[in-house]
Amino acid sequence: MSLLKETIQKIYPQDSESRDQAKERLDQLAIPPWALGDLMDLSIDLAGICRSVKPVVTKKAIVTMAGDHGVVAEGVSKFPQEVTPQMVYNFVHGGAGINALARQAGAEVIVVDMGVAADLSDLAKAGKIIDKKIGNGTSNIVKGPAMSMANAIKSVEAGISIAMDLDQKVDVFGTGDMGIGNTTPSTAIAAVITGKSVEELTGRGTGLNDEQLAHKQQVVKNILLRHQPDPKNGLEVLNCVGGFEIGGIAGLILGAAALKKPVVVDGFISTAGALIAVAIEPFARDYIICAHRSMEPGHKAMQEKLGCRPLLDLNLRLGEGTGAALAMNLVAAAVAVLTEVATFEEAAVAGADK
Amino acid sequence: MSLLKETIQKIYPQDSESRDQAKERLDQLAIPPWALGDLMDLSIDLAGICRSVKPVVTKKAIVTMAGDHGVVAEGVSKFPQEVTPQMVYNFVHGGAGINALARQAGAEVIVVDMGVAADLSDLAKAGKIIDKKIGNGTSNIVKGPAMSMANAIKSVEAGISIAMDLDQKVDVFGTGDMGIGNTTPSTAIAAVITGKSVEELTGRGTGLNDEQLAHKQQVVKNILLRHQPDPKNGLEVLNCVGGFEIGGIAGLILGAAALKKPVVVDGFISTAGALIAVAIEPFARDYIICAHRSMEPGHKAMQEKLGCRPLLDLNLRLGEGTGAALAMNLVAAAVAVLTEVATFEEAAVAGADK
Repeated sequence: MSLLKETIQKIYPQDSESRDQAKERLDQLAIPPWALGDLMDLSIDLAGICRSVKPVVTKKAIVTMAGDHGVVAEGVSKFPQEVTPQMVYNFVHGGAGINALARQAGAEVIVVDMGVAADLSDLAKAGKIIDKKIGNGTSNIVKGPAMSMANAIKSVEAGISIAMDLDQKVDVFGTGDMGIGNTTPSTAIAAVITGKSVEELTGRGTGLNDEQLAHKQQVVKNILLRHQPDPKNGLEVLNCVGGFEIGGIAGLILGAAALKKPVVVDGFISTAGALIAVAIEPFARDYIICAHRSMEPGHKAMQEKLGCRPLLDLNLRLGEGTGAALAMNLVAAAVAVLTEVATFEEAAVAGADK
Repeated sequence: MSLLKETIQKIYPQDSESRDQAKERLDQLAIPPWALGDLMDLSIDLAGICRSVKPVVTKKAIVTMAGDHGVVAEGVSKFPQEVTPQMVYNFVHGGAGINALARQAGAEVIVVDMGVAADLSDLAKAGKIIDKKIGNGTSNIVKGPAMSMANAIKSVEAGISIAMDLDQKVDVFGTGDMGIGNTTPSTAIAAVITGKSVEELTGRGTGLNDEQLAHKQQVVKNILLRHQPDPKNGLEVLNCVGGFEIGGIAGLILGAAALKKPVVVDGFISTAGALIAVAIEPFARDYIICAHRSMEPGHKAMQEKLGCRPLLDLNLRLGEGTGAALAMNLVAAAVAVLTEVATFEEAAVAGADK
């Protein structure tokens, strides 16, 4: 059996008994009813995910997947493609946004070459990055499919195998991305899966002006004219309009779900990966924590499609896993609420009048 | 000269030169323009507050101020007054929400008896809490002033002296409160200072039903009929409709501002304290970071009056400083962005096309 099939078969919904036990404990805490709001909802999810009223989220890792995109030939990004490998070096040297924010959250950063259009074998040999390179960037999706179906499966399985290899080292995963041009395939994925209009979904990415935005919208429309993948077939969507790093993110999410571990999904590109993962296996949704609401306008529709309220709303639009790193602190806080706050009885505090 | 006057004279606006230097650095970071959004705005504030492009926010403390309220005689809370001292014991034993969330954020919890209607001298003698008790709870503000003008000043000066005493131990302060009934005086303060209607401002506190909420609204209206303090005179507002812990919070904010240190303001009650502080000295506003948007409906109007966008929106309504503890991580993250992320030049990353 293939790794993908085997993984899908290991993905079950959250455990309702652990959720009920967590709810019961939270209802007894020496605080007014549900006074820690969304943290309490999150702690129930964490109990359901980890099958425990004492979920462990100590070991944190952000897996930042890098890949390039043939669609940059259409002029959809302000940054040149060489920035993708340059940023990989920046991650390795610890100078990027994700390094700073992961350090603050006590999370490790794991960088993966999923398909950067540059030779990064020196970094892989030195053990600084994980080499899962599927190609030197995807093909231009205005003109044809992003990748073969075989490579779509390969990219998802690469993400799964990373999750599996990290099982002993990681309690909670975070997703991250790097890839010049990757808001364009992500917007196409959002359009296919949410069914919303290109105008509603397309944003300025790394900083397009009005004219450039209009051009990007036209490019996305051309992509959607060229490809009509079945929105319920995640692999076909990835094959037609995906990205190698987006497939890797989808795989990481499936792998985390199979391991019964929470996965904190970062911004716009990561959420495109999450939509692919959930299209492949809907129960994977139960393991996803949406970190934040990005500045990209399409992000809202994608999170609504996932049925997931983001934890943070800080006008971020960097990617790399930065929002996931920030949200890791809230995951830890939610577990602290469930496991460290005393009940009325334990604290000998009087309850409310009925 | 009194401590209050002396403190006010030490409060200046943020340093514009440090703000400009921080902005200059942030504009050069190897990320798309302002892609870390609100964290970057916050880091500029922190530079302006600390007078440095390398602000230090390592030592964190939440100061949780406790006090009781004579207005509980009007039946405005579901919890009995004895819960205030019981929760103080819970704080000291480390079992409360604020203990769990402060631990997660690496912050110390400092508990202050500002005016609990119970003898807590054993805890004070044991060094477990700071004793600044001004009285055994305020008077019933439906029937008369909360406290004398002398005690209003005394409560603010108590908060100032705590900030001053902690100067060597604390880089960033957080505010917190405990006091059964304290959403009622806080709503009255909000009504006086924002000028909004009682209906718009009054919430369910620890969990009132519709009938109890209507009663609370009537109580607040009665309070406002009884008292018409000058909204620009913070001490008069405190004298008429305040609380001892609310005065303490106002003082802590003024003290932090005088020390040129950031103060993370928690929820509804803490923001009432912030409105008093800013009424006393408008420049204190420059040192306030609004942690979160509370479930209490009046909180929005209060934060708009302060001109402050909250960092988090997690449906919290506990108080104690819990939202401030969560926001401490974002303060640390903002400093990490400013001080740890490499520039395009440092990271040798190509910039955007112009």
